[in-house]
Amino acid sequence: MSLIETVWSPEQFQELADLWKDILTEHLRCVQDRRGPVLHWSDPQELTRAAAAALRPDKAAGSLTDRFRDLITTMLQSGQNLQHPRYVGHQVPAAVPPAALFDAVGSVTNQVMAIYEMGPWATAVEGALIERLCENIGWSTEQAGGLLTSGGSLANLTALLTARNVRLPDVWERGVPDSAVLVCHADAHYSVSRAAGVLGLGTGQVVRVALDDRRRMDPQHLDRTLQHLHEDGRSVIAVCACACATPIGAFDDLHAVADVCRQHGVWLHVDAAHGGSALMSRQHRWRLQGIDRADSVVWDAHKMLFVPALCAAVLYRDRSRRLETFHQDAPYLFDPSNPGLAEYDSGVATVECTKRALGFGLWGIWSLFGDELFEQMVDRTFERARQLWERLRNAPDFEPLHEPECNIVAFRYRPAGCTEPQQIDRLQYRLRTSLIRSGEFYIVQAVLDDRPVLRACVMNPLTAPNDLDALLDAVRHHAAAVADT
Amino acid sequence: MSLIETVWSPEQFQELADLWKDILTEHLRCVQDRRGPVLHWSDPQELTRAAAAALRPDKAAGSLTDRFRDLITTMLQSGQNLQHPRYVGHQVPAAVPPAALFDAVGSVTNQVMAIYEMGPWATAVEGALIERLCENIGWSTEQAGGLLTSGGSLANLTALLTARNVRLPDVWERGVPDSAVLVCHADAHYSVSRAAGVLGLGTGQVVRVALDDRRRMDPQHLDRTLQHLHEDGRSVIAVCACACATPIGAFDDLHAVADVCRQHGVWLHVDAAHGGSALMSRQHRWRLQGIDRADSVVWDAHKMLFVPALCAAVLYRDRSRRLETFHQDAPYLFDPSNPGLAEYDSGVATVECTKRALGFGLWGIWSLFGDELFEQMVDRTFERARQLWERLRNAPDFEPLHEPECNIVAFRYRPAGCTEPQQIDRLQYRLRTSLIRSGEFYIVQAVLDDRPVLRACVMNPLTAPNDLDALLDAVRHHAAAVADT
Repeated sequence: MSLIETVWSPEQFQELADLWKDILTEHLRCVQDRRGPVLHWSDPQELTRAAAAALRPDKAAGSLTDRFRDLITTMLQSGQNLQHPRYVGHQVPAAVPPAALFDAVGSVTNQVMAIYEMGPWATAVEGALIERLCENIGWSTEQAGGLLTSGGSLANLTALLTARNVRLPDVWERGVPDSAVLVCHADAHYSVSRAAGVLGLGTGQVVRVALDDRRRMDPQHLDRTLQHLHEDGRSVIAVCACACATPIGAFDDLHAVADVCRQHGVWLHVDAAHGGSALMSRQHRWRLQGIDRADSVVWDAHKMLFVPALCAAVLYRDRSRRLETFHQDAPYLFDPSNPGLAEYDSGVATVECTKRALGFGLWGIWSLFGDELFEQMVDRTFERARQLWERLRNAPDFEPLHEPECNIVAFRYRPAGCTEPQQIDRLQYRLRTSLIRSGEFYIVQAVLDDRPVLRACVMNPLTAPNDLDALLDAVRHHAAAVADT
Repeated sequence: MSLIETVWSPEQFQELADLWKDILTEHLRCVQDRRGPVLHWSDPQELTRAAAAALRPDKAAGSLTDRFRDLITTMLQSGQNLQHPRYVGHQVPAAVPPAALFDAVGSVTNQVMAIYEMGPWATAVEGALIERLCENIGWSTEQAGGLLTSGGSLANLTALLTARNVRLPDVWERGVPDSAVLVCHADAHYSVSRAAGVLGLGTGQVVRVALDDRRRMDPQHLDRTLQHLHEDGRSVIAVCACACATPIGAFDDLHAVADVCRQHGVWLHVDAAHGGSALMSRQHRWRLQGIDRADSVVWDAHKMLFVPALCAAVLYRDRSRRLETFHQDAPYLFDPSNPGLAEYDSGVATVECTKRALGFGLWGIWSLFGDELFEQMVDRTFERARQLWERLRNAPDFEPLHEPECNIVAFRYRPAGCTEPQQIDRLQYRLRTSLIRSGEFYIVQAVLDDRPVLRACVMNPLTAPNDLDALLDAVRHHAAAVADT
């Protein structure tokens, strides 16, 4: 008897989906009520063994439905709970739950893209979203354009590949000349310097621009850097600015940076993976003034537009740049008998050939709830970060390290009597490990000026003011616990 | 009144998920019964306008539930139906429906990876899957390892980046020397030659090896090619073989290719994105004999393991190679205080920083149904392709172009009286366009020896023998229709 008919049975799908819905609903309820841990910490080897054991199923061990329930339950009891209001960690959000349902329409039907005819609706949705994102940047939707891709790192790589090819017209066919160099913000995400390694420049050809006292790119230093590079005969493929940079969420002065780039005739790339979404907020969009002068922008919807990962946009002020990223055709994909359709073939501009319908979640919640939802989520989480900062400022045993510009707050815990730098540094690491493994909160660490710091990022609009009070208490509690050991 | 509480309400999630489940179940039933078209063809501009209009919702236009139903219905009535048994097109499958439910657990909870603590369960699942894939290749799971990434093209890029860095130890920091060259199968997927453009070698540094009469890489020609490149002082970063190649699904003789690579000391990369899954079939795994001698292998689970896109594996015979892909750290990600955990930090080896939990769908159905499901799906679809080929052979007006080695069949339609090459070529394009826009079937085109051909790939185990008869009839019918115009 073939398994195939069982597996594809609509009735069985319905039964499993019904169970799925109830388990997930109860999970959301439980997590929102702060029952259970944020992170389920386990030893990685043991957990991998458990996941491996499941792959050799004993199919006599229960009905299909029972085994399905057990598997889903295991998944929920072994992971990280981004839906928990006390997750204040890496820049990955509590996703808007209905967005996952729209996304999963794509999974059941396996909607993909590459050429228009493989995913007409996925292509249309992506086109509509790109248009709106460009509009929010302040670009003419006649001229601007872009694409969605599998994450911010791949998005940065794609944009910088385009910039490289535009700056060095022979590079695609002939390889990278020694003169090529990439200029970036000193706090740029690691994917930017990695891109220099990937794209064949070499990471030694990355020049970092100094920061001002708010960790923003210093435009005067950028100017001098570009001047020196020009005198040395180097070819600058791009300047990468940040809106905002990862460590403390600092937004560059994009007008000042754009002025310098324009003067030197250099491609301006803005990594707005995190901060781009502030454009949806009337209160905060001023932080991105000047972004419309960029040549390329990266904006992750799976960060501050609160959709499930991954949904990253690469946006070009001049949409025709999309065609310079790759100079290639694949006859079995791009139909030479229908050249007009090539404009709608996503594969010409993305690293992915077959690409998941990345826009369904964003399109769905935007269509259900409108712009307002995004504005509210940005305003709420930015406000919470400010409230956290105020609490840290008022607590004598905490040291906030900057005034927050968005939903990111970096700080140190410095209890009385802890004065040696090494002692302070070690405490940050140790208390964080203790805290996150307890499941009470999830926060991250960063390194600022070669010293470890704690970092909270409010990625869930359900995080409440009293969660912030509880965070300070939990930090104190775990610091005391590790000090004793 | 804030939208945030509405949007995150578990009760509302439950109500929408209930509706979602019923709509999707009815969709599966309808499509499996062959009611409705395979592809819903629409003009791309009109469709994009429709998708864009939805993004400016009139929230007074109905209850949230009604508007959700309308949006989902629109999605289902405007896309490509890979679940339709008459989809026999690009190498993207009818996904196993329960796989989508496991995948969507990840979407609701937004499980991601980058460092172990961000996704302990996602990491464990990926580790367990990689182990089983390596085991199926015939590798020691002590030594071998790898990662999942967002698609076969990104997987090829990742593996070739690793190969480049291994061959040229200074390249990561210092850039690509002029001597670097990439050797590949003449029918290699476009992502392979694109990789040379991306990685800074230049596509002019791609050397294609001649094919034998079955479109397999010719090992003698490979030997001579490597000899000449050596004499010219070139540095070969890798030889890319195919298992199988896209156009007709030809599997290279991997033992013969591996012999030549070993003799020349060159990295062997096998693109087994499509054919790797034949390893799950006792009947067909012989086609991949020798794959265990590769240095790297790409194997897409979102092709012949029938999970939703994207889930591509990059596998290394020596797992430590993973760490040569990128030579970098990001202090806020990779915790220096816990160096032992770095082995479990997925981000050290993937282009993605934040990565979706790509393995949930595969892990779920493997755990529910065991190895047998994959074997049955491979055997069934390979058998259907053979049945299609037999029908084409027995039909005087069809010209099958090769004996199928898997589930791919390339052919021409040549009715009586159609004898001029140009006339034949034009007919293939025109009849295909007519056929796919009718929604009766979805097939693709390829170019073989500079001439267009038709290509069917059986990507749905529910495709029945009488669908194959109907395909021949539909091709005849549309050929007659376009001949009249």
